[in-house]
Amino acid sequence: MARKQKFKITPIGGLGEIGKNMTLFEYNGDGFLIDCGIMFPANDMHGVDYIIPDFRWLVERDDIKLHGVCFTHGHEDHIGATPHLIKAFPGLPLFATPLTAGLLQVKLKSARLLKNAALNTFDAGDTIQVGPFKLESFHVCHSIPDCVGYGINTPFGIVLHTGDYKFDNTPVHGRKTDYARLAGFAQRGVALLLADSTNSDKAGWTQSEAVIAPALDRVFRQAKGRIMVATFASLMSRVQQVVNAARAHKRKVCITGYTMSEYAKIARKLGYLDVGDDMLVTVAQAKQLPPHKIVFMVTGSQGEPSAVLGKLAAGRHRQLDVRRDDTIIFSSHPIPGNEEMVYRTINRLIERGADVIYDAIESVHVSGHACQEEMRLMLNLTQPKRLIPVHGEVRHLHLHAKLAVDNGMPPDKVTIIENGTTIELDGRGVRVGERQPGGYVFVDGSSVGDIGRAVIRDREILAQDGFVLVSVNVDRRSGKLLEQPRIVSRGFVYLKDAEDFLDNIRDKVTRVVNSNQRMNGNRQNLVEDSLSKLIYNETKRRPMIFSIVNEV
Amino acid sequence: MARKQKFKITPIGGLGEIGKNMTLFEYNGDGFLIDCGIMFPANDMHGVDYIIPDFRWLVERDDIKLHGVCFTHGHEDHIGATPHLIKAFPGLPLFATPLTAGLLQVKLKSARLLKNAALNTFDAGDTIQVGPFKLESFHVCHSIPDCVGYGINTPFGIVLHTGDYKFDNTPVHGRKTDYARLAGFAQRGVALLLADSTNSDKAGWTQSEAVIAPALDRVFRQAKGRIMVATFASLMSRVQQVVNAARAHKRKVCITGYTMSEYAKIARKLGYLDVGDDMLVTVAQAKQLPPHKIVFMVTGSQGEPSAVLGKLAAGRHRQLDVRRDDTIIFSSHPIPGNEEMVYRTINRLIERGADVIYDAIESVHVSGHACQEEMRLMLNLTQPKRLIPVHGEVRHLHLHAKLAVDNGMPPDKVTIIENGTTIELDGRGVRVGERQPGGYVFVDGSSVGDIGRAVIRDREILAQDGFVLVSVNVDRRSGKLLEQPRIVSRGFVYLKDAEDFLDNIRDKVTRVVNSNQRMNGNRQNLVEDSLSKLIYNETKRRPMIFSIVNEV
Repeated sequence: MARKQKFKITPIGGLGEIGKNMTLFEYNGDGFLIDCGIMFPANDMHGVDYIIPDFRWLVERDDIKLHGVCFTHGHEDHIGATPHLIKAFPGLPLFATPLTAGLLQVKLKSARLLKNAALNTFDAGDTIQVGPFKLESFHVCHSIPDCVGYGINTPFGIVLHTGDYKFDNTPVHGRKTDYARLAGFAQRGVALLLADSTNSDKAGWTQSEAVIAPALDRVFRQAKGRIMVATFASLMSRVQQVVNAARAHKRKVCITGYTMSEYAKIARKLGYLDVGDDMLVTVAQAKQLPPHKIVFMVTGSQGEPSAVLGKLAAGRHRQLDVRRDDTIIFSSHPIPGNEEMVYRTINRLIERGADVIYDAIESVHVSGHACQEEMRLMLNLTQPKRLIPVHGEVRHLHLHAKLAVDNGMPPDKVTIIENGTTIELDGRGVRVGERQPGGYVFVDGSSVGDIGRAVIRDREILAQDGFVLVSVNVDRRSGKLLEQPRIVSRGFVYLKDAEDFLDNIRDKVTRVVNSNQRMNGNRQNLVEDSLSKLIYNETKRRPMIFSIVNEV
Repeated sequence: MARKQKFKITPIGGLGEIGKNMTLFEYNGDGFLIDCGIMFPANDMHGVDYIIPDFRWLVERDDIKLHGVCFTHGHEDHIGATPHLIKAFPGLPLFATPLTAGLLQVKLKSARLLKNAALNTFDAGDTIQVGPFKLESFHVCHSIPDCVGYGINTPFGIVLHTGDYKFDNTPVHGRKTDYARLAGFAQRGVALLLADSTNSDKAGWTQSEAVIAPALDRVFRQAKGRIMVATFASLMSRVQQVVNAARAHKRKVCITGYTMSEYAKIARKLGYLDVGDDMLVTVAQAKQLPPHKIVFMVTGSQGEPSAVLGKLAAGRHRQLDVRRDDTIIFSSHPIPGNEEMVYRTINRLIERGADVIYDAIESVHVSGHACQEEMRLMLNLTQPKRLIPVHGEVRHLHLHAKLAVDNGMPPDKVTIIENGTTIELDGRGVRVGERQPGGYVFVDGSSVGDIGRAVIRDREILAQDGFVLVSVNVDRRSGKLLEQPRIVSRGFVYLKDAEDFLDNIRDKVTRVVNSNQRMNGNRQNLVEDSLSKLIYNETKRRPMIFSIVNEV
């Protein structure tokens, strides 16, 4: 590589938010991506299924040749948007460790895109060549096996991307975060570190996954009836721990739900999930077993009404129900914004007679992200010249920056940027460059990106106060009303109890139309304005108001 | 009181939820209430301002003579619905300690109901007579001064209601929870305890309010510029602590927002808030002071967009803005369901340059409710024969029950009930009696109770996918379409980008109408059904669909 150009880094997602992680690296007309994830919508993003990074500008840019996507691990917020990317860049090479590649395969297959994907597998620790770029992968611990970070060789030194990580000294699958490699990078000189900020407001050191085993053991020991364990479909380390507990307590395991079953199948095939055929049963088989002989793995730990646990809580699951003496374990922590739905699900399951164990009661979940002491360790191990905090809300990025400065890094070497901001690295240092769009692309139903802020805002208004529509037929010549106005309204008041008020509306509209017979063009506005006023005065609400004036 | 009757207790609100606390006690045709609070809506109760207990059935019941409402303390979830109750029961006597009475006065005054309220003040520890009922009040600590619980004398022993409480040994205002009185009740025999369950999933002992002072001191010491402290308007102990810190660091205090100012005024007048005139400044005066000489008390600690902090975060406050070097303290904890809005507010304030301190960073807030060890202490001090866990979600009630059983109470002496369930106490014990409606009454705009579950469900559907309405004019004789169908739609797709799709809809409707000229009555259904199918097939969404067929 020649040194005339700058090495550019553009986070497309994952800054100032938890989710939809994706970063572009480019040099001299060549580029590659790290990760391509989705994000779950906030409570006020009505009707949105999920959000993908806004890479539309990248599709337009014919001055970059994209050589591939390198994945850090197999969670949805890092791989989930890959089908959308592959549609835009058919045949784009994908680079991943075996488990991550397996999960990508499941995802691409169900999107019918497997034939368009060039999937390349490597082992954590391998060096991979992506077009002209040399990336040295290194193993990190998280809450799924086979996670990596990348040391990217640039003419200006090593750029280090941690991915999601923690320093678990007793991880479920035995392999530790690669201290030696990280220290090795430091010896060669780390020009810039991009590091996970998710837990930067948490002091100390994240607990090891190892604390979960004894907690599960305590719960399994006391459970009289069936056990159900809820977690994310992709949290394969957790599935392994539940399998281990089941084995110790002589229970069979039933993995429910399509995604979790598919992921478990791949993980078993690749050797990341150690469970014999004799231990696994179908739902039908599970129902034949005595209650104390079975553990169900279920989805829905975030309170999603359409997941297995959500259906069980509502009594709407086709094959299973919740009974007295069932023990239900939430092996998860609510993602911010999901607390209400999670606790509602817990309350309903308790009402149905279950004993529900969540992390306030037992240590049945630990975070997969580094806390403050681990962040300090990362800085001290890798000794970067500069830091860009990534992966986290604005507050996390700022606290990570503060931590780095308190740890001795000069304040001008820490740069907080937003999605879409390009960072330019050269021999002299780092410069904040151009700004690309870094916003949200909403996926709703089968469509991508056709609902934007305006549609969401309309949904918000409809959600607040509903709408009222009045249709009137007016005589073309006299301008007089021909028949009673018709009213269509939803979400405003309970219409059956509001006949008087609807009469008021009809009277008002009749008066407005009949007393303004000459003002043809303005009739619609006149009707809507007078209706707005009437409704606000009577109810102090502001539903959306429409009128249709038919001149007949 | 004769012993032929049963003593009946009916929680109208406050069970299985956090908020809208209200309990009816009745004996022999006489009754009184404890508390009358509001609850904040869940995220999916679209457009609801707040929720009040459903006491409509009580208005209908002419077999009970109501003698008054006894309040435990002045928080919104215990006093907020009083104006609604007073409208239903004009002149109903209210019994409260001085500060609670002062806050009630502010509330009733702004609802223009002060003249209908018979407000009786007593001191914590006093015995009050409410009709035929003798209630012995006792002081408890919480996060506002002047809180009480009640020992209610019944022919069957003492019924004890704790209100919201914790055992703070170093409270801000000096007065402890009344250990002696609680022990005294035990000696006389507590037949039934109704006790706060809010923190029953938290081990140990809630921290004292005293830990906040040194935390505030640390933050004040480091703050370079202005300080803003956000908390609930009614958290007068917290206001006192901020005033103390301001005094120590030679800053003036500016209390912003109507409610907090009014509450502070009353608290000062009654001697519950110790702050001299020389320390208080208006917003205008505050703006003239150097940044390091001022502390603002603001509302909006729950992320409410319409509160002071919400406006500051959005840059929409008329008098104030957020600047670099401002320190903003969230002296509060998010109520479950508010996390997303709280953290969004924090992120925006940080983006505006402020240093934001929240409880993950410093102990700037402690809970006002008892944790598990305090719950055990309450049981051991009062030695009740029976327990009904109150104040808390279903999970909290069940954990409180489990704690009592683990503490030695026989399982059949602990009763978990729902709002509206009457508990009957007599010499033989407790029986679960009749069921009254115990649901939600939604307050939206100026109306109470006219939107129910059906309206909320419609709002939910509108929020998900919006609506599409088609209006067609049809020739009365031929049944043929007279002109192009008109479409009104919001919240479905961004219409400007969807012209092709709208054309599809018009074509479809035209075909359906023209090919079904004979089927008069069914036209509307036919149009709506075919439209539903078209829209679902094309978009996988389910907006609400309406048609208006004008026969001309």
